[in-house]
Amino acid sequence: MKIDLSFNPAELDELQIRDKNVVVIDVLRSSTTIAVALSNGAREIIPVESIENAVKISGSLFGDVTLRGGERNGKTIHGFNLGNSPLEYTETTVKGKSIIFCTTNGSVAMHRSRFARKLAIGSFINATKVIDFIKDVGADFLLVCAGRANAFGNFSLEDAVCAGMIVYELMREESADLELTDSSRAALALYKTYGRSILKMLKETEHGRYLIEIGFLEDIKLSAQVDSYPVLPVLNGNVIKLLKDEE
Amino acid sequence: MKIDLSFNPAELDELQIRDKNVVVIDVLRSSTTIAVALSNGAREIIPVESIENAVKISGSLFGDVTLRGGERNGKTIHGFNLGNSPLEYTETTVKGKSIIFCTTNGSVAMHRSRFARKLAIGSFINATKVIDFIKDVGADFLLVCAGRANAFGNFSLEDAVCAGMIVYELMREESADLELTDSSRAALALYKTYGRSILKMLKETEHGRYLIEIGFLEDIKLSAQVDSYPVLPVLNGNVIKLLKDEE
Repeated sequence: MKIDLSFNPAELDELQIRDKNVVVIDVLRSSTTIAVALSNGAREIIPVESIENAVKISGSLFGDVTLRGGERNGKTIHGFNLGNSPLEYTETTVKGKSIIFCTTNGSVAMHRSRFARKLAIGSFINATKVIDFIKDVGADFLLVCAGRANAFGNFSLEDAVCAGMIVYELMREESADLELTDSSRAALALYKTYGRSILKMLKETEHGRYLIEIGFLEDIKLSAQVDSYPVLPVLNGNVIKLLKDEE
Repeated sequence: MKIDLSFNPAELDELQIRDKNVVVIDVLRSSTTIAVALSNGAREIIPVESIENAVKISGSLFGDVTLRGGERNGKTIHGFNLGNSPLEYTETTVKGKSIIFCTTNGSVAMHRSRFARKLAIGSFINATKVIDFIKDVGADFLLVCAGRANAFGNFSLEDAVCAGMIVYELMREESADLELTDSSRAALALYKTYGRSILKMLKETEHGRYLIEIGFLEDIKLSAQVDSYPVLPVLNGNVIKLLKDEE
């Protein structure tokens, strides 16, 4: 069982992804927000790669059951109902709703990975669910770090450390069978270095510091709570829903 | 002084690079081979991004002073004089010669970075020269890991660890002034994890294992010898030459 990893979703070729099992990780904040929204009863999340497409798609859906969520530069997109803060996605706001979701890195990586055989959404708040899912599937996986579009090479430390946590936990139980690549070994080393305090790490990354600067410290605190939202969002067709335990 | 880093040269925009100070790192083996070739008296190295261009350029140069070197899948390109093994670039072979150089990752990253303000070529065998050069310039630098074209996201561990060694040594002396990004912090952590035995690390990376498989273990041993070729190859115009100490 091979665990490969991409630090850089811009490199993903949609055809390369076809028939792979993928986890998309965008800790700050798309993956976290999706786990919270679905935990709080949102019907589904529809990840799109551009504002234009978000507007186009929402035009053909019923207004009373559809919300538009997402961000540019961390802030709510003009004309959207919600930003990308998990704290906005309360039960009152999202229950029963379809959410068209457009973020700078996360929703783009999810959209690019839409032809995957299986696609789960990973973050610290649902890490164990993701790890158990990988074990259940029991096949090769590609961990995709959504990264940071305005960094050279798109690298973001928080996504790498979260991916590394997944590798670490898989290693602990299946060391004999697990084949790692350069990138998944690197993520593992980064988790060992920075994983002792997730909150401290998140506060010190480039994007963490930016989010604090624009007023989202509480989002970072929520994002650091390992397994606090034990759900498994998976893509099916074009929409992300929770995988029910019985499936 | 900010040290940024790209794990992924495919993302580099030539215009983004303009006016930046850059070090291109391709430990296995382009950077290593260039340092050896210039140490052994090669007149200059001309990095090109494609075999087509290598052939085109060499057609207009004098045959007796020009060699073509490079690889595809680690092996000598058909019709080229030399492969990408540093052991081929002996004094007898390269002294006084211009070498048109075409490799899968390294020469492409060098070509893409050709508009940099300053561009040095880094590897373990000339690490301290590169570190001293960065200190001398005393300005922001971008470390470009040439990576591995056929890996997801182009990541290669050996280039990341070498970049991390550079960051580590800069930190030791200039900790107060040094600003790191997510990617340069990650490289630093990878150096701390894997830097204790460079040879062991090189043997265990994906590309290291491949090179051993096709018979290049001696290249890996040479590539692991820190500071064994204390020279500084720099790009000037379109050619790489040694920076003389008096410059």
